[in-house]
Amino acid sequence: MSGKPKVIIIGGGFGGLWAAKTLANQPVEVTLFDRKNHHVFQPLLYQVATAVLSPGEIAQPIRRILAKVKNTEVILGEAVSFDNDAKTVTLNDGSTIGYDYLIVAAGARHAYFGHDDWETSAPGLKTLEDAVEIRRRVLLAFELAERDAYLTGKQRQLNFVVVGGGPTGVELAGAIADIARQALAGDFKAIDTRKTNVILFEGSDRVLGSFGPELADSAKRQLEQIGVDVRLNSFVNEIDPGRVKVGDEWVECDVVLWATGVAASPLGKALGVETDNAGRVLVEPDLSLKYHPNVFVIGDMASLTQENGEPVPGVSPAAMQMGTLTANNILAELKGKPREKFTYWDKGTMATIGRSKAIAKAAGMQFKGFIAWLMWLFLHVFFLIGFRNRLSVMFSWFWAYLTRERSARLITGDADEMKDAVDFIRGRE
Amino acid sequence: MSGKPKVIIIGGGFGGLWAAKTLANQPVEVTLFDRKNHHVFQPLLYQVATAVLSPGEIAQPIRRILAKVKNTEVILGEAVSFDNDAKTVTLNDGSTIGYDYLIVAAGARHAYFGHDDWETSAPGLKTLEDAVEIRRRVLLAFELAERDAYLTGKQRQLNFVVVGGGPTGVELAGAIADIARQALAGDFKAIDTRKTNVILFEGSDRVLGSFGPELADSAKRQLEQIGVDVRLNSFVNEIDPGRVKVGDEWVECDVVLWATGVAASPLGKALGVETDNAGRVLVEPDLSLKYHPNVFVIGDMASLTQENGEPVPGVSPAAMQMGTLTANNILAELKGKPREKFTYWDKGTMATIGRSKAIAKAAGMQFKGFIAWLMWLFLHVFFLIGFRNRLSVMFSWFWAYLTRERSARLITGDADEMKDAVDFIRGRE
Repeated sequence: MSGKPKVIIIGGGFGGLWAAKTLANQPVEVTLFDRKNHHVFQPLLYQVATAVLSPGEIAQPIRRILAKVKNTEVILGEAVSFDNDAKTVTLNDGSTIGYDYLIVAAGARHAYFGHDDWETSAPGLKTLEDAVEIRRRVLLAFELAERDAYLTGKQRQLNFVVVGGGPTGVELAGAIADIARQALAGDFKAIDTRKTNVILFEGSDRVLGSFGPELADSAKRQLEQIGVDVRLNSFVNEIDPGRVKVGDEWVECDVVLWATGVAASPLGKALGVETDNAGRVLVEPDLSLKYHPNVFVIGDMASLTQENGEPVPGVSPAAMQMGTLTANNILAELKGKPREKFTYWDKGTMATIGRSKAIAKAAGMQFKGFIAWLMWLFLHVFFLIGFRNRLSVMFSWFWAYLTRERSARLITGDADEMKDAVDFIRGRE
Repeated sequence: MSGKPKVIIIGGGFGGLWAAKTLANQPVEVTLFDRKNHHVFQPLLYQVATAVLSPGEIAQPIRRILAKVKNTEVILGEAVSFDNDAKTVTLNDGSTIGYDYLIVAAGARHAYFGHDDWETSAPGLKTLEDAVEIRRRVLLAFELAERDAYLTGKQRQLNFVVVGGGPTGVELAGAIADIARQALAGDFKAIDTRKTNVILFEGSDRVLGSFGPELADSAKRQLEQIGVDVRLNSFVNEIDPGRVKVGDEWVECDVVLWATGVAASPLGKALGVETDNAGRVLVEPDLSLKYHPNVFVIGDMASLTQENGEPVPGVSPAAMQMGTLTANNILAELKGKPREKFTYWDKGTMATIGRSKAIAKAAGMQFKGFIAWLMWLFLHVFFLIGFRNRLSVMFSWFWAYLTRERSARLITGDADEMKDAVDFIRGRE
């Protein structure tokens, strides 16, 4: 081992990876730990969940991304505890590793507002495994409806429910409506998949509210054009297998997807410092911990209100910018220079709604429909990691657009698991 | 429902699918049941297991393949029992469906010679789920060795063991040796993946013995060239987590893969007729059951000795030919014509060994090395189902050949599962 300062990064998401890239081949020794061997391009997860892309197209081994970086080691491992005074991290296999600087970037999951038992009935979308599970439930619902119709001669109503009208909820609802109306319509013979209901429940009075009233209204109209039933001011206050309760009314459904609420990684609490009610660590303006300036928390785990009074949003560009700033601050400090404060630079935001449908906001301008969708397409391919993935995703999209087919329509899992899933989503019967 | 004769097909593998294709748009009403929603191109499964291809590239929804076939319905469902006299099939959800003709084509799995408990230690390769599990174990073994070396400063020996020197065993051993020596070599920093041992145990005195002595010897040499340790006349007679016993000697290993032995689907026994010791149904020359001429058993589930005294081999071309013949016999009989007997037409066989390495036998000629490998490549792309898959696989292969990268290197599964796997394959420590 060299005598260079040791930097440990926990998490290979956008924050951790951007930190590692900034520290690449600098006079530090970097180790990046992640529980998974792959970095996931989260903005496209919903496309895996809706059978457009394969898991391998939006993920890349972290080790591969950093293969050419000489001063960085990637280790598959799960951090479980920290000693900020001794400057050590302990992994779940009991091994303890020392550091000079620590960057914790373990992300967030969805939160169920104290109802964690809802998760089995209403999975959320944060990991590749989540995406494959959602894909399985969605495709399975159509398969079971087909079997029922084949055996009974009658088509029963298929209902898909998405809870939460933020970007993920809108993307999922739009993509499922697209599938039902286009990709699957020709393949089922006993049922008409176009008769599927997709219901999007949003507690506030707008979907994609953060985009402002004009774009939010456009998003709602675009969703309705592709057949999504958008219900605003509708709180889901109970979830059973096969049904959700909205206000006083129970709504039956074949699949429920959860797309609201955020809970930061429990590693925030493991750091032994102050967290907000979503479990995010309250960080200093330079993203470090108050009494432990050599420990940084970045990305979705960090809670920071900027000097202009605005909180930093939990989006991937913010995580990337935090990773870069933190790495630069470490390098600056090693050269005896002062650290800089974090300021989020909003380059624009966008959300897709379905085939040829989207909204976007950038450089003070607003975009809707096809043009916003094209912008979304190119930007997402551009930011996708790995040249091969970019080619492959472009091909998959081109193919899906041209043929309206979905190429990744696999239901995996063994027969018993499948039967459990069947019994499960039929729980209401 | 029409008054046309009803044909039920159990299984959407090569046999069942080829039967369905032959019955397409003929004056019969066809229902194909499968436990999975997808057809898998089994000859390329080992490439999913070794991270060259993604699951979606070698599988296609059965429903999609038969989407344009008007007289055929595809139903996700598992047959569990039969009443040959009443002419009904019962599914695992209890529903019972009648037929005029039944084609059972549920395939085979690997057999552990009465040691089913070995399966958790030494998975075999028959389904997409098997392939993903093998990929997980292989990649995980390298990750854990890297972590050990990072923590201890020492590289421990990595041993991969493949049991069985038939086509699957040879393909797996060759592909793992390729990965270790090429694709992964540049990505790991604490270990030298090229020092990995890949040991192939074969009970007989040849690998790929069915190809004849000359090609078998060539295959062994080609395997050794890419670094596989081929041990002939070596019976594995015991398997524990982390080790196998060969003769009297225990060999430690990080991953064991099982590539020998065949057990036909238990549906053969469920038919209530005579089976051989691999559970295959003894069929009549026209592939029907002795006392139930309207029930056919085809593919890996069927045991038939042809008029020339040769048994039909359990390979995919035989299954395809059986599917086609059975469908044609049904159509002939409906027109009052006699049935034909089954004769296997051997168009040639081939096996890949690694990058640019293979053997092939066709039209009385033998091929080795690069030329055999090219033949293998083109034939497999040609027979792959779905035009999109063909393009995608060609691109993946081109990419892998050019860059020596492997594109599908994902370890999926949640952290606890992963830890279990870790503990498990480290069982010997």
